[in-house]
Amino acid sequence: MKETLNIAVVGLGQRGTLLLKDTILPQPDVNIVALCDVYSDRCEENAKVVVESGRPAPQLFSDYHDALALDAVDTVIVTAAWESHIEIACAAMYAGKAVGFEVGGAYSIEDCWRLIRAHEKTGRPCSMLENTCYGRDELLVLNMVRQGLFGEIVHCAGGYRHDLRDEISRGRENRHYRFRNYLSRCCDNYPTHDLGPIASILDINHGNRMLSLVSMASKARGLHEFILQDKGADYDAANFHFAQGDVVTTLIKCAHGETISLTLDTSLPCPYSRCFQVQGTKGMFEEENRSIFMDGKDREFHEDWKPRWGCVEEYREAYDHPLWKEFLSNGVRGGHNGIDWLMMRAFLNAVKAGRSAPVDVYDAASWMAISALSEQSIALGSAPVAIPDFTGGQWLLRQRWQP
Amino acid sequence: MKETLNIAVVGLGQRGTLLLKDTILPQPDVNIVALCDVYSDRCEENAKVVVESGRPAPQLFSDYHDALALDAVDTVIVTAAWESHIEIACAAMYAGKAVGFEVGGAYSIEDCWRLIRAHEKTGRPCSMLENTCYGRDELLVLNMVRQGLFGEIVHCAGGYRHDLRDEISRGRENRHYRFRNYLSRCCDNYPTHDLGPIASILDINHGNRMLSLVSMASKARGLHEFILQDKGADYDAANFHFAQGDVVTTLIKCAHGETISLTLDTSLPCPYSRCFQVQGTKGMFEEENRSIFMDGKDREFHEDWKPRWGCVEEYREAYDHPLWKEFLSNGVRGGHNGIDWLMMRAFLNAVKAGRSAPVDVYDAASWMAISALSEQSIALGSAPVAIPDFTGGQWLLRQRWQP
Repeated sequence: MKETLNIAVVGLGQRGTLLLKDTILPQPDVNIVALCDVYSDRCEENAKVVVESGRPAPQLFSDYHDALALDAVDTVIVTAAWESHIEIACAAMYAGKAVGFEVGGAYSIEDCWRLIRAHEKTGRPCSMLENTCYGRDELLVLNMVRQGLFGEIVHCAGGYRHDLRDEISRGRENRHYRFRNYLSRCCDNYPTHDLGPIASILDINHGNRMLSLVSMASKARGLHEFILQDKGADYDAANFHFAQGDVVTTLIKCAHGETISLTLDTSLPCPYSRCFQVQGTKGMFEEENRSIFMDGKDREFHEDWKPRWGCVEEYREAYDHPLWKEFLSNGVRGGHNGIDWLMMRAFLNAVKAGRSAPVDVYDAASWMAISALSEQSIALGSAPVAIPDFTGGQWLLRQRWQP
Repeated sequence: MKETLNIAVVGLGQRGTLLLKDTILPQPDVNIVALCDVYSDRCEENAKVVVESGRPAPQLFSDYHDALALDAVDTVIVTAAWESHIEIACAAMYAGKAVGFEVGGAYSIEDCWRLIRAHEKTGRPCSMLENTCYGRDELLVLNMVRQGLFGEIVHCAGGYRHDLRDEISRGRENRHYRFRNYLSRCCDNYPTHDLGPIASILDINHGNRMLSLVSMASKARGLHEFILQDKGADYDAANFHFAQGDVVTTLIKCAHGETISLTLDTSLPCPYSRCFQVQGTKGMFEEENRSIFMDGKDREFHEDWKPRWGCVEEYREAYDHPLWKEFLSNGVRGGHNGIDWLMMRAFLNAVKAGRSAPVDVYDAASWMAISALSEQSIALGSAPVAIPDFTGGQWLLRQRWQP
């Protein structure tokens, strides 16, 4: 069991900067040994933040290979652009490091296998840093599901509904990878935020697995209209054709007959939501109005047509997940209402013990594969496509995910 | 323009009985000439209700052919089992009657064409009696869409979420057609309640059309568990295998690039909802929390994470549909919070003027076809299937639907 981890952070855009400042720097058991970004200004600014926090100045790199070559580094955190997550994670493992990488989708199925191979060859711990698996409501529902309150789970839904029009359309100024992705690809490019908590509820890769999917994309109108209004008709991107449909819906069939519906919805005006919904033979959870419907307890109609909106709070005391109860009693810290903190603690504790945290490479590969497979299905007119078993049959044996 | 319509009601189960009593009998411009049901007790009970309302006793029939042979009948209302809607509607048209038939899905695409042919050969008015097209919120949203408040519409969702476990499982005692359907079929068997209002928003068959769909069904667990608990393990149906998956999700692609997501969810515990959702480039409507999100006005995050739940009421005064404003000032009447009444008035007024009401045979055929096509897609492992153009190209010319 390691006492302290010596960390290199690779990728210091918006996400890396936020995670470093709010969630990594406050940890007592890490040293920040190296920072790496292709843009030197990002390295320098983040180095300042590290020093201002009272820590020694880290070494700075523009090429991640150089950072990985440092003997002093034992743990790599990848917060770079989507396209480089798997490449850098694999390189880190081959360099003998433990690695955790930020969320995103895969560009090809072969990329997912590459991740599996790197882990199996090197034995190095490798985890995807999916914070939504530590969401308070997500864990409350997981807790209730595992205690049988919803009965047998039959259908789950999730989504990433987030109005990113401003971020995406300023992609060239702010050097953000979403711009090029939206310009040239059409798929559920960000499935893991919504799929992660559902996968833990359905024991995906842990006694169950995803078999096939179909995906359908709406037309792309949101970004064009936004840029036209924001920048005017003379701005070049006002006339670009974005390939990415505004709303992409994906349906997934599981080995035990459950279905999953995922929605990507990032270029239209909307309130933020992960559209989380769980339906079993005894009850239902619905994020849109934060309500729980229990068989034999709740009525289908109410005078005001509000099915007990917000009633999830009635279950809070009895079913808040133990992890959250402890977190609340110690004081919630870190970004995204604390879910970054819980996710980072799970990662650091696992690496110190020499193992992968949940979400490991098998889970990560199958979740990330949804992007590449939804792209295929859309390109084939919503044809069904098979989802590989990245565990090679081990999903029949793998123990349940514990947050 | 006819002053009075002479009506035969065919099918007097739960729906026919309710519609007759609450919505047809109170109309001033109809005579109830004939009642027909294969079960004589149903005829007799409903005849009593007619007489008690102060009207002359209707003639009673067990075979609909005999009812259609009556010269005194000019208008037929079909409230029989799903399987007979199209058969009886066609027979009514060939007998020279105007006809309105209750909602449900089609069993084959040929059935849909049969409906089209009967109408085109006879020229008789024929309408589907889809009450949800007259829903207050549905018409408010349609009104706002047509005034451009949501911008260009990109994606719509709908559903029929209704816990029917009790009704379905008692299907043999209460002679309800759902039992046999759930036992032997797996599809979105009831698509028009949710699709109807969406079709009017997207101008389906009126400048736009549905091109293709994919459909996926979850496992079937709800009915088995319900019957087991309700009746015990010794009850025969507790050991039946129901073919109908508990949750069926269908994705539809439209000619102008919009997507539609439909959910059938009738055998799990849940609050009633038609899961209505409309997304455009300027705003969004969400039924689950009855909220409207407007670009530039609403914020994506709120302190309490409630995106202005219920705020649809803020739009009520300005955008309630004129039809509903008038209805409210005259006093809302009839079943299902008044939507049956508005639907029936539209039907009767159209027949008196010698024409089909919205929803006409072309709309009805394409909406009902979703059942047969979702059954095909599910059977083919969620393969995409083409949706026929029942208008023969006239969808490019047909005028917008007006409620």
